[in-house]
Amino acid sequence: MNAIKVGLIGLGTVGAGTFHVLQRNQAEIRGRAGRGIEIAMVAARNPERAKAFQAIVGDGVPCVGDPQQLVANPDIDIVVELIGGIEPARSLVLQAIANGKHVVTANKALLALHGTEIFEAAREKGVVVAFEAAVAGGIPIIKALREGLTANRIEWIAGIINGTTNFILSEMRGKGLDFATVLKEAQRLGYAESDPTFDIEGVDAAHKLTLMSAIAFGVPVQFDKAHVEGISSLQATDIKYAEQLGYRIKLLGITRRRPGGIELRVHPTLIPSSRLIANVEGAMNAVVVQADAVGTTLYYGKGAGAEPTASAVVADLVDVTRLATADPDHRVPHLAFQPDAISDTPILPMAEVHTAFYLRLVVADQPGVLSRITTILAEHDISIDAVLQRESAEGERQTDLIILTHDTVEGRMNEALAKMQGLPTVLAPIVRIRKEELA
Amino acid sequence: MNAIKVGLIGLGTVGAGTFHVLQRNQAEIRGRAGRGIEIAMVAARNPERAKAFQAIVGDGVPCVGDPQQLVANPDIDIVVELIGGIEPARSLVLQAIANGKHVVTANKALLALHGTEIFEAAREKGVVVAFEAAVAGGIPIIKALREGLTANRIEWIAGIINGTTNFILSEMRGKGLDFATVLKEAQRLGYAESDPTFDIEGVDAAHKLTLMSAIAFGVPVQFDKAHVEGISSLQATDIKYAEQLGYRIKLLGITRRRPGGIELRVHPTLIPSSRLIANVEGAMNAVVVQADAVGTTLYYGKGAGAEPTASAVVADLVDVTRLATADPDHRVPHLAFQPDAISDTPILPMAEVHTAFYLRLVVADQPGVLSRITTILAEHDISIDAVLQRESAEGERQTDLIILTHDTVEGRMNEALAKMQGLPTVLAPIVRIRKEELA
Repeated sequence: MNAIKVGLIGLGTVGAGTFHVLQRNQAEIRGRAGRGIEIAMVAARNPERAKAFQAIVGDGVPCVGDPQQLVANPDIDIVVELIGGIEPARSLVLQAIANGKHVVTANKALLALHGTEIFEAAREKGVVVAFEAAVAGGIPIIKALREGLTANRIEWIAGIINGTTNFILSEMRGKGLDFATVLKEAQRLGYAESDPTFDIEGVDAAHKLTLMSAIAFGVPVQFDKAHVEGISSLQATDIKYAEQLGYRIKLLGITRRRPGGIELRVHPTLIPSSRLIANVEGAMNAVVVQADAVGTTLYYGKGAGAEPTASAVVADLVDVTRLATADPDHRVPHLAFQPDAISDTPILPMAEVHTAFYLRLVVADQPGVLSRITTILAEHDISIDAVLQRESAEGERQTDLIILTHDTVEGRMNEALAKMQGLPTVLAPIVRIRKEELA
Repeated sequence: MNAIKVGLIGLGTVGAGTFHVLQRNQAEIRGRAGRGIEIAMVAARNPERAKAFQAIVGDGVPCVGDPQQLVANPDIDIVVELIGGIEPARSLVLQAIANGKHVVTANKALLALHGTEIFEAAREKGVVVAFEAAVAGGIPIIKALREGLTANRIEWIAGIINGTTNFILSEMRGKGLDFATVLKEAQRLGYAESDPTFDIEGVDAAHKLTLMSAIAFGVPVQFDKAHVEGISSLQATDIKYAEQLGYRIKLLGITRRRPGGIELRVHPTLIPSSRLIANVEGAMNAVVVQADAVGTTLYYGKGAGAEPTASAVVADLVDVTRLATADPDHRVPHLAFQPDAISDTPILPMAEVHTAFYLRLVVADQPGVLSRITTILAEHDISIDAVLQRESAEGERQTDLIILTHDTVEGRMNEALAKMQGLPTVLAPIVRIRKEELA
């Protein structure tokens, strides 16, 4: 059988990685797919990259500057979009679909924001849009959720799905350094971009979480409803106190089914140190899935980088090569559920989210302070799990009071926090970090 | 579209679990599969189970005593074999295939021993034999290896793939108890069978490893070539010393590609305590896969039990429902590689396997003992990584000498061990446990 013909848009890190993996492992890949997978055309904006690429592959594979030429090429069966960002990626993907081509993409931002439009267009044309590489790099988590766990009612997903922030948090904990210092180190080592906003503010994690949530619960992608909170204001002090209490702080993406709707949130989270996911260090990713039949499963690996991401892109190419011959109604649905089974379950506002909390209050070191604070919590029906008070030094007038609460509703906690913050004995803004047992 | 019709052979733990999961989650499953999955007939040897089942489902689903009747039923599209063991399972599966039915099975022993015959029969009839439930229960590891990592040249797999032994080892370490005591506790709690041989001697793990090895490396299933060693002779003392040196002992199934062939072995193994897999406790399973593009990935979850195993059985049912409409040449191949891409790379004999070693020698506490032992190791070109000597008590004439070696070839270690054992100052049989860094 003839090789399937692939057009590759983008020769950056992942584009080059995809090319190399396909070349290096072509015998293994053909042995699995039953058909060769051949890059038939490449589009790269950067003329130097294009030239370097052409020097490697010779004239056999045309490399064009204009990606329009690639998506219009009638010889191409599958378009691989690896340029990232919204435009021109969105237009190129939609044109490829309109031209009847399957699409493989690693573009989480595009799908989290415009997935509904793109999947609908693909359905109408009977083509596949595959996106394993968009979430957690080389970990086959989309496949696990969409195909491996089809028997289950999924209850929640919690993931370390951004390597940059996990690297920073690991270094802050391991070396006791503050955020700004570690960020600079991460930038020097290439773990963080020169403009790190998307990573450190949780946006990248929220894009990925939005996709997992849609697949897990059979709802449309709704990035605009996600709560997004990063790690830039996290203090080394709280990492240390959390550790004393038996917890680690991780930036988690959490999505959970509740009676009234779905929670969809990215924020720093205390998790018990004994959990496997609490021990995921450095730039690694891991996703925990809780489901009714299988119980807890965890998936771990590299969430970024040229070849780990290429691993997912190529796995999608093999899948699409197989699916191309299947009856479209029996392919794996883009969002795991058939279009007529997608539900309109709402995404819950943060005020209705259930979590436990870690609170750090800088308080006057005088009698009655703890009692006033615990009274406020009791009035809001928030029960206390543990209290830790720093031993104040001789002559010191203030101290740190750490409180771990049991699960409560966030809106109620916000009210209690406002009251506590108003106490004259509370001397600084209260630090509040959500806490999950993940059990 | 009409529901696909399933015949279920076996109403034991997994059979009942499969029935319950299909019932409870039928809306979700249909939403994903695009088609209902309906149990149309059940076969159960045990008349009481059959009666209890009939009482639940009423007369709508016939329950027969003779499974032949089920595999011969022309209305059945997929036969689910959940009776385990070799016969009559083998004959029933082959008959189902001969009758043009797809098969889903959790039977690792059957496939590890007779997989070649069964997959060949399935290929000839153009049907699928799916077996996600045969390895690591609900963890979708077969899917990850066969479909998620298709881009990769897989280098090695190391897995905790038997929950009974991992429970026993966790308890031995956690409570400092010996093997026999913990085995009794495990039997009382239902984690170990009354005849626990298959689990504790590593046979069950070797069945599963054989399947993963075939899929990873594109070779036939060859259970007869596997090295199988269990945990029944493991001593609490060695778990303790390993811990002092920064290691945990796990029963691992390891398969690794080497220049001259493939290693295929199950044995107790020291692994660094900092590895994620070293922290997998209790009856949980985990599999680490090392592959060239993606790097290290890990998959964790429940490896046994009614619903975790049913989760995998039902995922296979959904897959088969989809694949049923695909061109047979483009389905996922049973052993990941197309039949013409299966290689005859040999399985290496244990004498040619590379590992590091933990040695515990009971030696006379006198000068020159360590020197004689290290000389023997040096003569065999085995280099030492660490030495730990127990402080001997006042007046005690003997002590424990623990040696960790670097990687060597097992045959060479066997020769060195024979020489060491012959020394008059070595007072007891030397304990030897293999050690892997898994990095």
